[in-house]
Amino acid sequence: MPSKKSNTLEINMDRLWETLMVSASIGPGKTVGLSRLTLSDDDKEMRDQFIRWSQDARCTVTTDPVGNIFARREGTDPTLAPILVGSHLDTQIAGGKYDGILGVLSGLEVIRTLNDHGIETRRSIEAVCWTNEEGVRFQPPMMGAGAFAGIHPIDWVLAQTDKNGALFGEELQRIGYAGTADRKNKEIDAYFELHIEQGSILDAEGIHVGVVTGGFTSFGAQVVIKGEHAHSGPTPMKKRKDALVGAAVIIAKVNEIGWDYEPDGRTTCARIDVSPNEYGIIADHAEVTIDVRHPNAAKAAEMYQKALGLIPIAAKQANVDIEVLKEWSFGDVAFDPELIHLIRSTAVDLGISHQDILSAAGHDAYHLATIAPTAMIFTPCKDGITHNENEHIEPGYTMPGVNVLLNAVLQRANA
Amino acid sequence: MPSKKSNTLEINMDRLWETLMVSASIGPGKTVGLSRLTLSDDDKEMRDQFIRWSQDARCTVTTDPVGNIFARREGTDPTLAPILVGSHLDTQIAGGKYDGILGVLSGLEVIRTLNDHGIETRRSIEAVCWTNEEGVRFQPPMMGAGAFAGIHPIDWVLAQTDKNGALFGEELQRIGYAGTADRKNKEIDAYFELHIEQGSILDAEGIHVGVVTGGFTSFGAQVVIKGEHAHSGPTPMKKRKDALVGAAVIIAKVNEIGWDYEPDGRTTCARIDVSPNEYGIIADHAEVTIDVRHPNAAKAAEMYQKALGLIPIAAKQANVDIEVLKEWSFGDVAFDPELIHLIRSTAVDLGISHQDILSAAGHDAYHLATIAPTAMIFTPCKDGITHNENEHIEPGYTMPGVNVLLNAVLQRANA
Repeated sequence: MPSKKSNTLEINMDRLWETLMVSASIGPGKTVGLSRLTLSDDDKEMRDQFIRWSQDARCTVTTDPVGNIFARREGTDPTLAPILVGSHLDTQIAGGKYDGILGVLSGLEVIRTLNDHGIETRRSIEAVCWTNEEGVRFQPPMMGAGAFAGIHPIDWVLAQTDKNGALFGEELQRIGYAGTADRKNKEIDAYFELHIEQGSILDAEGIHVGVVTGGFTSFGAQVVIKGEHAHSGPTPMKKRKDALVGAAVIIAKVNEIGWDYEPDGRTTCARIDVSPNEYGIIADHAEVTIDVRHPNAAKAAEMYQKALGLIPIAAKQANVDIEVLKEWSFGDVAFDPELIHLIRSTAVDLGISHQDILSAAGHDAYHLATIAPTAMIFTPCKDGITHNENEHIEPGYTMPGVNVLLNAVLQRANA
Repeated sequence: MPSKKSNTLEINMDRLWETLMVSASIGPGKTVGLSRLTLSDDDKEMRDQFIRWSQDARCTVTTDPVGNIFARREGTDPTLAPILVGSHLDTQIAGGKYDGILGVLSGLEVIRTLNDHGIETRRSIEAVCWTNEEGVRFQPPMMGAGAFAGIHPIDWVLAQTDKNGALFGEELQRIGYAGTADRKNKEIDAYFELHIEQGSILDAEGIHVGVVTGGFTSFGAQVVIKGEHAHSGPTPMKKRKDALVGAAVIIAKVNEIGWDYEPDGRTTCARIDVSPNEYGIIADHAEVTIDVRHPNAAKAAEMYQKALGLIPIAAKQANVDIEVLKEWSFGDVAFDPELIHLIRSTAVDLGISHQDILSAAGHDAYHLATIAPTAMIFTPCKDGITHNENEHIEPGYTMPGVNVLLNAVLQRANA
């Protein structure tokens, strides 16, 4: 297929936007956003909708044992490894309407556009929805993509629990998305993921496309702090084993590590659970998540070691026991040079403004990059606000990126 | 009534213990203790039981607008101001079976013992249950006694909410304890409160009775920390407004104040609420309770000022706004010298080991002391463990204190 013809192919932005708005009505948040948690009823409703759209686009839909959904448009040579295009349909609590969702629905829009123009491709193209990218209800994040890439054993994923003790495997069964598709040993030619930037660089500079060259390296941990119940009045400081103080020391000092690595380093403790968490009773139990990120892998590892080094300090200060319950890491990837080049040159061909960019957030693409050539396209979001109901994009700012995706996928599929 | 006769009067410890064990079955905790929260169904069940027992003891029972219950045994001269003997029937979450409860049921046992012996008193005696001493479900603690003493306006008490938004006034109505007894302008001759020590001094030294001369001064506050939602990956440290970091700085530094005032000073943040409290999202909202105590009122005030002084420091460090939502104070009281002397001399007369002691915990007696001559008797509890399901007392260790209570009340009632 001549390059000129690819370059003139365009997505139907009205249709993509309408599709996004249907998604935006499933699992509403408190105000303008979404709270569509993994394996919730809302997640099921959105998955059902995605499958109906995929079937309308004449795709064959399969689901794997951790609930990842694949909507396949068969190529002219079905023996060739397919191209996957996707992201996730789950959101944060009080999150936005586009984070992840835009990537899945752009994959669908690529397929719909090829259908509109009756364009066949040599390789099959699959629009993919990965399960539990956000890691809100079940930790770690990017769980479905991690299982697909063989990083997390399937049984381990199914055995994870949310904070109310609900099992991932049972919830997956409950919403009817425990599938049987076996993707092991099946090659993938390339994985493309389009995503809103979740940062303010593109928006601030008025650039339409971020060519993602790699990610911040991220380390995460969940720690448990074990103290002892006692009355806050008569119990002298020396007799206390205060789990909340242990947690607070960790949270405050983890934050300081981020400041020591400004402006690139980031450290966050976003979640704490305390028991009994009541006035007058010294807490006997606390749990905290630690999240450490840096674009330089060695520095991220150094920061993470410093964070772990706080554990004995906090344990001594609060006279408590502290253990690491769970650890995870992602993002130490460089995306595929050939795909990066393809995205960049497609943007050039289409006359779309673009720049190289690093991703500070986690993405399913990180796990895919360990098993297949992978690349990402970022599109702007207003003021970089995300994981927030005020997350906002405009059709005019989004369309150029999806057109780059379409034409890059098309070229790769016929290469 | 001759002093010799009073001195030989004894409570029925088997009956008191049986009464305590009935209470110990209402509102069970996780293991061996109780979780009988204020205005819960369990609280209602216990109140109903207390009223049945009081009526069996031929008392007249009344309830005031905040749910305080008065079981009155009429004296021979009903025009004289009565003697009140009481404490509270609510408990902590996973609290003990005796904290507060022993004081109310000892008041009832005093009345029952006088009935057994057909002893009339000049002054009326009332066994009292004060509402919401613990302050677990509704803050501040000692709310019912505070309202009775005119420290909290009744309407203000009724308007307080628990963490799920339930109104104190509506919950009080729901369990049927919004009474109409008007105690305003009614004099009280004396208030006695017997309570387990909630510390280990008596237990460690094998002494049966603590003659409480006063309390630790306590200051409490609830602060709210206002930050901003953002993604933990792409948001640089300088752009963050992290409410959880603000809370952690307060918790860690409030704890340090306690250490600076060792061994008498105590500082605690026992409760934190964070929103959205999820992995990947910087918290936009947190609330923390601060609790500061010292036997010396001036030092307690100094410590509390230092705690409040942390607010701008934490606000700056986390780039957040912090406000004090609610403040309270109690314990800066010296009990009545005459009543203290009466308790001490009664213990001497009965040959019961005793020592003077200060209370580090809050008690309803603190509020009563502002309107009537007040004193407290402490009895031992094992290892000083309390606000804990393992709180433990023995009949043999408890009976001497209740006998001191009985004989002191009897002397006062006939004085």
